[in-house]
Amino acid sequence: MKHVITALETHDVRFPTSRELDGSDAMNPDPDYSAAYVTLRTSDPDGLCGHGFVFTIGRGNDVQTIAIGALRHLVVGRDVASVLADLGGFARTLTNDSHLRWLGPEKGVMHMAIGAVINAAWDMAARAAGKPVWQLIAQMTPQQIVELIDFRYIGDAITPSEALALLQSAAPGKAERMETLVTRGYPAYTTSPGWLGYSDEKLARLAHEAVADGFRTIKIKVGRDLADDVRRCRIARQAIGPAIGLAIDANQRWDVAAAITWLQALADFDVAWAEEPTHPDDILGHAAIRQAVAPMPISTGEHTHNRVIFKQLFQAKAVDLVQIDAARVGGVNENLAILLMAAKFGVRVFPHAGGVGLCELVQHLAMADYVAISGSMEDRAIEFVDHLHEHFLDPARVRGGRYLAPSMRGFSAEMRSETLQHHRFPDGSVWSAS
Amino acid sequence: MKHVITALETHDVRFPTSRELDGSDAMNPDPDYSAAYVTLRTSDPDGLCGHGFVFTIGRGNDVQTIAIGALRHLVVGRDVASVLADLGGFARTLTNDSHLRWLGPEKGVMHMAIGAVINAAWDMAARAAGKPVWQLIAQMTPQQIVELIDFRYIGDAITPSEALALLQSAAPGKAERMETLVTRGYPAYTTSPGWLGYSDEKLARLAHEAVADGFRTIKIKVGRDLADDVRRCRIARQAIGPAIGLAIDANQRWDVAAAITWLQALADFDVAWAEEPTHPDDILGHAAIRQAVAPMPISTGEHTHNRVIFKQLFQAKAVDLVQIDAARVGGVNENLAILLMAAKFGVRVFPHAGGVGLCELVQHLAMADYVAISGSMEDRAIEFVDHLHEHFLDPARVRGGRYLAPSMRGFSAEMRSETLQHHRFPDGSVWSAS
Repeated sequence: MKHVITALETHDVRFPTSRELDGSDAMNPDPDYSAAYVTLRTSDPDGLCGHGFVFTIGRGNDVQTIAIGALRHLVVGRDVASVLADLGGFARTLTNDSHLRWLGPEKGVMHMAIGAVINAAWDMAARAAGKPVWQLIAQMTPQQIVELIDFRYIGDAITPSEALALLQSAAPGKAERMETLVTRGYPAYTTSPGWLGYSDEKLARLAHEAVADGFRTIKIKVGRDLADDVRRCRIARQAIGPAIGLAIDANQRWDVAAAITWLQALADFDVAWAEEPTHPDDILGHAAIRQAVAPMPISTGEHTHNRVIFKQLFQAKAVDLVQIDAARVGGVNENLAILLMAAKFGVRVFPHAGGVGLCELVQHLAMADYVAISGSMEDRAIEFVDHLHEHFLDPARVRGGRYLAPSMRGFSAEMRSETLQHHRFPDGSVWSAS
Repeated sequence: MKHVITALETHDVRFPTSRELDGSDAMNPDPDYSAAYVTLRTSDPDGLCGHGFVFTIGRGNDVQTIAIGALRHLVVGRDVASVLADLGGFARTLTNDSHLRWLGPEKGVMHMAIGAVINAAWDMAARAAGKPVWQLIAQMTPQQIVELIDFRYIGDAITPSEALALLQSAAPGKAERMETLVTRGYPAYTTSPGWLGYSDEKLARLAHEAVADGFRTIKIKVGRDLADDVRRCRIARQAIGPAIGLAIDANQRWDVAAAITWLQALADFDVAWAEEPTHPDDILGHAAIRQAVAPMPISTGEHTHNRVIFKQLFQAKAVDLVQIDAARVGGVNENLAILLMAAKFGVRVFPHAGGVGLCELVQHLAMADYVAISGSMEDRAIEFVDHLHEHFLDPARVRGGRYLAPSMRGFSAEMRSETLQHHRFPDGSVWSAS
């Protein structure tokens, strides 16, 4: 029996996080964490479906939701088996719609919409296979993974045959690494102590608790006031001691010159990495900052909008490590391209998470990377923020400072139906009551 | 009497250009030229208003239109005089809405929406001043122009004081240059002969006619098939003779290696410039291509999404010249930043036009650049495509291969009311009848 995708449903879902200053940083003082959420329905009598979303911080989530709906003509009516058998081809179809490509290309609202739909197809594929997404990828052959990737515009950094060789060399030990993941989990680091809106006392208390909870790295937000940052770095370092990593995150606050001055003033705190010192598009700017503040490691990536910019960050030696984000680029497929380039260039990946649902998604990518691509996890970690997980059917679970490997089939992307109902903007009960 | 902006109206306007293959190129085989159009209304009893738009090529114009509407809260209710007295502050307010910034930052659908609204405010400012936009800018003082610009993230390439010095050094001769513009116009080049969908015969005939009409440069589309391109370059070169410039445009068709191979095969045709050889985000790729095919000039810019990418194109010596686009970046203000950087780095500007309304807008920027910034126009030209001008109240006028300076007040952005009505998608008569 042939089944087709029968509907692409969208939901504008928002959480009033600005009421508590959770998630406040130098660029984003009052975010309302939100999701432009998509569900793909099928004619499969067993109810096979797929869920995905774009994370936003409030206003504009309606625009993002409508952008997802603009992909309906490329999705509804498709044969389910054909889509799931060729997720690479499916992704390319969405990315290469010439009219929609004009709205990017491969960036911003339209590209994130494409990523959400591609991720929903991955959720569906993993459900159909009865596995979590990380395991679905981990158990693919090197050739199957290569076929998922659009090498267009990155051929000067990695070719399909180089990618194949890299995957083949990582193949030995996959079964053991899957076992290790299931038994030990994957390292996490936490940003929960360090939001700019928190008091010094709250910072110290939460930093101390984070170490007690088993985290080996914490991250704090910087960039609003240098004297504040020096004080807060000192408080954090005192709370965690010398053996725990202290990362800082400026959320694009600085120009190149300001970043250099500011980071030099924070050099005494043994910074694990300085994240998003300037505009995410500024490849050469990151390279200049990195050179000026060496050996302090520099990173960016959560706003890096596609594999072409990541490619250049690697080529220009602009970063020591990168964040990837599961909902910023063109879905799993483009993130696999980025992970392969990172592996080739020897750049460690510390996935961006937090927001709403980003932990749930990106853990799968990091775990697939560990099993099938980089083969390593002890020198890296996935961000963790303990917010809003209760809205998901398969919430991210962190114990003793490590993400537990998801065991449910799918991409951990599905939100509870009550959440979709109560948090619907602007007429869900959470919003209409305020 | 104090007046306020009372409404931000949007229109989804589309033209069925795909029926004739006008505008076809290697990446965009069947565009329906479209505008996400915005009108700002005021309480001024004389009917002061402002018009702007984003150009798209069809599907997705609805998303773009809704994105413009998402800016309403930042615009409606504002004091008109305050907005017009501080267009720099107005632009920064739109660009820096932290929630909406997450959808970029400064790229894609949301950034183009911001650009359209900023351009509509410029239309309003010029109407209020009783001048065309080019003249409004040209008659500003250097200090006034500097205040329009957001130097954030470009301070390592140009500082406010450098910009001021550059503008001051360009100030002598402004009156004469304005006079020259009005009497002689500004050079145009034409892309009309070279669409990929045209036959060889049509290419030869239109190329010949272009020279007879006074154009000193023509441009043809390439990138679908190398043998075709060699043949079409030969036909074009034969039609125009050795003294006329022949530019080629690949519309992002190639990877770096393919671009180099392909352009080397076209080296014999004395190419004036090779435009968009690869992905617009690939700064280092353009630099590599430029180095490999020198002395063939390399350019990009119509899809370059903000001043941060332009900055790096200049810093990396990735281009010999750039296109600017009036409706891709954050409006007049960001384009002034780009023009100032181009002047500082000695890179010539050949503005992108065509589509619908892009000629109308961008001529003002090129002319302002000539009078107040670069001081030069004989080594540059504005693209011209003779399509869809009849839909504008103040259409671009090209005579003898030169744009005539607009004399009507405003930004030449206003579409005829019949056009807004008949071309409204999907229910205007042009669409409902098809």
